[in-house]
Amino acid sequence: MQPLRNFKELASHLKEAGLRKKIAVVCADDPETEYAVTRALKEGFADFVMVGDKDRLAQYPALSEFADRIEIVDIKDSDEAARHAVALAREGKVDVLMKGIINTDNLLRAILNKETGILPKGTLLTHLTAAEVPAYHKLIFFSDVAVIPYPTLEQRVQMIEYDLDTVRKFGIEQPKVALIHFTEKVNPKFPNSVDYKTIVEMASEGRFGNALIGGPMDVKTACDLHSAKVKHIESAVCGDADLLIFPNIESGNTFYKTLTLFGKAEVAGILRGPKVPVVLPSRSDSGLSKYNSLAMAVLSA
Amino acid sequence: MQPLRNFKELASHLKEAGLRKKIAVVCADDPETEYAVTRALKEGFADFVMVGDKDRLAQYPALSEFADRIEIVDIKDSDEAARHAVALAREGKVDVLMKGIINTDNLLRAILNKETGILPKGTLLTHLTAAEVPAYHKLIFFSDVAVIPYPTLEQRVQMIEYDLDTVRKFGIEQPKVALIHFTEKVNPKFPNSVDYKTIVEMASEGRFGNALIGGPMDVKTACDLHSAKVKHIESAVCGDADLLIFPNIESGNTFYKTLTLFGKAEVAGILRGPKVPVVLPSRSDSGLSKYNSLAMAVLSA
Repeated sequence: MQPLRNFKELASHLKEAGLRKKIAVVCADDPETEYAVTRALKEGFADFVMVGDKDRLAQYPALSEFADRIEIVDIKDSDEAARHAVALAREGKVDVLMKGIINTDNLLRAILNKETGILPKGTLLTHLTAAEVPAYHKLIFFSDVAVIPYPTLEQRVQMIEYDLDTVRKFGIEQPKVALIHFTEKVNPKFPNSVDYKTIVEMASEGRFGNALIGGPMDVKTACDLHSAKVKHIESAVCGDADLLIFPNIESGNTFYKTLTLFGKAEVAGILRGPKVPVVLPSRSDSGLSKYNSLAMAVLSA
Repeated sequence: MQPLRNFKELASHLKEAGLRKKIAVVCADDPETEYAVTRALKEGFADFVMVGDKDRLAQYPALSEFADRIEIVDIKDSDEAARHAVALAREGKVDVLMKGIINTDNLLRAILNKETGILPKGTLLTHLTAAEVPAYHKLIFFSDVAVIPYPTLEQRVQMIEYDLDTVRKFGIEQPKVALIHFTEKVNPKFPNSVDYKTIVEMASEGRFGNALIGGPMDVKTACDLHSAKVKHIESAVCGDADLLIFPNIESGNTFYKTLTLFGKAEVAGILRGPKVPVVLPSRSDSGLSKYNSLAMAVLSA
């Protein structure tokens, strides 16, 4: 397949490939989630199980138009709704989970529950964002802006593996991965830079399959060839990165917020690690972003 | 004075206020520095002492046009040139220092030298950037993207004081300061957030004079009122921040690089702490950015 360079191409691809998944949405009663669910129904790539207070859902116009593709499970208590949706995923009855207006912590608690949850033992929970930015020639993927504040080397390796799995589903056969830092120097004073060196070595030994991994380097070197040339940094990743791995949550979150606010980016995001991809939007995400996230989750599932 | 909202207004202000300073430039032989120096001469807010290899400077067309406003000190060795320029600052013969193509570390060594340098004992060296971003209604100032990787509480307080001094010179009487983190929660697991709480308390006790300080908050909350409202965060800083203080160099650097590459920002930057402001551009900075930095340094000196 051709690499998907933006969210429009993602939606077209789902249609052409005939991908269609079942999604459980927990407590969907905000206009942004309604927009995302309705548009996904129209595009045809998702059917839904709406778990939550039925009276609040009654306002959805899509409920009548797509009645045969929406199942409603009426549960008033949001914690109970979360547990029910997670159980559906555990039993293989849904392929994707999505958070409505329940608190993130409450849904995560149900996902992480050792007995009734859906995170296999020893598995990392990590967040992957995809962004469509007017000033870049393709999608930029990046981790982790939400879940793991300060990944260990082992966690970072697992994070990159999950991320590459999704990035490859976007048709990118040989993803280019930039390990982000504030300078290109490896320095024991900055342990992340030392971990990066190890990861680059692991990549050259084939640990991550068909992928190019470079770093440490800064955001501009990763995404702008001119900046890399000025600094005399030679890496096939420079100026053409698909995936950025951030050193900590402060820098990842700053990238996310700056890109959406000042770079006019559209974004999508999913949690990987659990048995099914989870769409976990933040409170200030737009309806379009929630819709893009659904499409990304369906592709990844 | 009216607040200066962009770099054009800064240049006009320097002209109207008749500000004119003497600047020593160390090893100026790149086209970007030439552009900055020539334009500053034309605008009339700076005279220059060029310290470096005279043969390399001979190409500057401005050398003949503005011969009476440029003094040349012919020193071939770059370390010696750095020491000479620093001595000029120490003796009060110049008001600003600027780096040409010498390595940052070499110029810093001369500045930091305990006997012959210009950093008073017990004084912090910190970097302040100003950015003009199409998607924001005024200049955004931020620290520290270059010098202090992980500021202590004491260092951060001093950093904010320096920054406020410069921000106020831009005509902003009551600067709004956002202490940046990835969430608005104060949590002992994230020591910066605890320091931020202390700083907000110090601000309410008048430690920073006429300024509004809020945080922890993320970049979007600081610069976009809608995002703050969605999160029910109430602070006079939200959506209208003048100055962003970043938790660490990874996040500060990420903001700088993302803002310039994807947000199409024009930037200026100076070092504060030494006896005179220092313009210390990075290798990939444009001529315009170096020129803006000169103007910012002249205003701050």
